[in-house]
Amino acid sequence: MAGRRPGQTQTRDDILAAARNQFGQHGYNGATIRGIATEAGVNPALVHHFFRSKEQVFVAALNLPMTPSTIADAILRGPREQIGERVIRLFLGLWSAPESGQTFLALVRSVSSNEHIASLMRQFLEHTVVGPVSAALDLPPLRITGAAAQGIGLAMARYVIKVEPLASATDDEVVELVAPVLQHYFTP
Amino acid sequence: MAGRRPGQTQTRDDILAAARNQFGQHGYNGATIRGIATEAGVNPALVHHFFRSKEQVFVAALNLPMTPSTIADAILRGPREQIGERVIRLFLGLWSAPESGQTFLALVRSVSSNEHIASLMRQFLEHTVVGPVSAALDLPPLRITGAAAQGIGLAMARYVIKVEPLASATDDEVVELVAPVLQHYFTP
Repeated sequence: MAGRRPGQTQTRDDILAAARNQFGQHGYNGATIRGIATEAGVNPALVHHFFRSKEQVFVAALNLPMTPSTIADAILRGPREQIGERVIRLFLGLWSAPESGQTFLALVRSVSSNEHIASLMRQFLEHTVVGPVSAALDLPPLRITGAAAQGIGLAMARYVIKVEPLASATDDEVVELVAPVLQHYFTP
Repeated sequence: MAGRRPGQTQTRDDILAAARNQFGQHGYNGATIRGIATEAGVNPALVHHFFRSKEQVFVAALNLPMTPSTIADAILRGPREQIGERVIRLFLGLWSAPESGQTFLALVRSVSSNEHIASLMRQFLEHTVVGPVSAALDLPPLRITGAAAQGIGLAMARYVIKVEPLASATDDEVVELVAPVLQHYFTP
């Protein structure tokens, strides 16, 4: 925030609050930068100035530590027979890093208790993970949701419920445990 | 509650509140019926009268629709090569039934936002699912937590986040999707 005037932070927060509302009401596809700007009482150009694209507004509204395209890239880049291991290592890396780990934890907690956030997460998963990955891998979308469910449950069990011995297993042990399952979901 | 005097309902609720506190503070193994009775200000015989055993107090405190032994029984009964399918069918049946489905939903929601409930769920999983099932199947406990994580994530993705096409898939489609993964976890 260095160099920003306090008013800009407030404006940015107003835009994000409007974005959460617009995405919640109209869905990812239905929401527009114009609609978000109108609700926030600012010029659409200002939304573009802060966030550049609808996807970036969405990422900021959900407080995600990375863009969906980064996730899809990481899943799709590299040999297909190692896709399960790549995904779980990316996942564990993000959860272990203090900043993104905190963000994910807040997200998992709020998804369960807040229908509004659940709706944003649903749209995020459908439009930016399940759709693109199933198209790129030529797999039924249901398979991708199975893998996503395994990831969400791993986060819940390891980082929220903290069930042993999963909570104190090393990352390598978790990779060995979960990579074959993700590989199964990502294999025709 | 037919035939019960209003005072009994209050007493039962007091015992359950004390139980949640005692299990939270001392863990499943450390908590005692005597300690729960003392905190609730009643005679231990009354706790026995209402709930019969520590396990039953625990189940009632977590508002679970079935006892842990029932779950373990369902997992362990029948051919081992069909264990994955048995577990997922039991799971889907419980989620589909209105009463147990509502209870599970409340539980998943509160686990994420309430450290107290998360601690009870952790103990429930460790002492009454992971321990007994890994012993009975002669598998490392970590494998059982992998299967539990898949189940928790399936619940989150299908019933809380409601991501498509998983949310509106039929039970048979979900069985086909998830049974092989659970079978993998339950196979040496």
